[in-house]
Amino acid sequence: MEKVNIAEKLSKFSDHWNPRIIGELNGQQVKAAKLKGEFFFHHHEHEDEMFLVVKGTLKMEFKDHTEVVKPGEFIIVPRGVEHKPVADEEVELLLFEPASTLNTGNIQNERTKNLLEKI
Amino acid sequence: MEKVNIAEKLSKFSDHWNPRIIGELNGQQVKAAKLKGEFFFHHHEHEDEMFLVVKGTLKMEFKDHTEVVKPGEFIIVPRGVEHKPVADEEVELLLFEPASTLNTGNIQNERTKNLLEKI
Repeated sequence: MEKVNIAEKLSKFSDHWNPRIIGELNGQQVKAAKLKGEFFFHHHEHEDEMFLVVKGTLKMEFKDHTEVVKPGEFIIVPRGVEHKPVADEEVELLLFEPASTLNTGNIQNERTKNLLEKI
Repeated sequence: MEKVNIAEKLSKFSDHWNPRIIGELNGQQVKAAKLKGEFFFHHHEHEDEMFLVVKGTLKMEFKDHTEVVKPGEFIIVPRGVEHKPVADEEVELLLFEPASTLNTGNIQNERTKNLLEKI
């Protein structure tokens, strides 16, 4: 049982839209990620997804509104809900979601990360 | 889908060792808690537990060592592992754990909180 320093984990990589696994519990994973630019609308059939912002401003677009999420804030996107993360400037965040969660949800494309690195 | 501001949730209560539920996903709960003083050794038979420190310094005592967890750091305590949270000064933190998790784990006493408030 060793503590994890979030900033130290985030310092280990610089690429965007490529979450790393930094913790596991109860079949869930804690991931650290850096985002910049726009993702695309997708949903997760069976997984709720939590985004906890550490740095920067995340815009989470839904079909009917946008939530602006800042450091010290989080948002939970329930399964089945279409969402599109947007980061005008670089955003650093934590994700909490089941180990089975694929970053692109119901869509498989060149941005899909099938295997995440543990750091 | 509305974002949650952690500091705003923490401002809504002042008592110690009485976690509030501030989010739910995948059968897990996100709780906010304030700690001050010593808890006691206990374990959770079936649940891993994550402590993410927001303010103050948490000392997590294990039978063989102590981990010091500061803001921006977290620790995951696996199921079955005896642990004792200690907060010399007030600590504010988030907990991530299954909805079934009881604060006192395998021990039922006057500090057990059977029903947590959602805020």
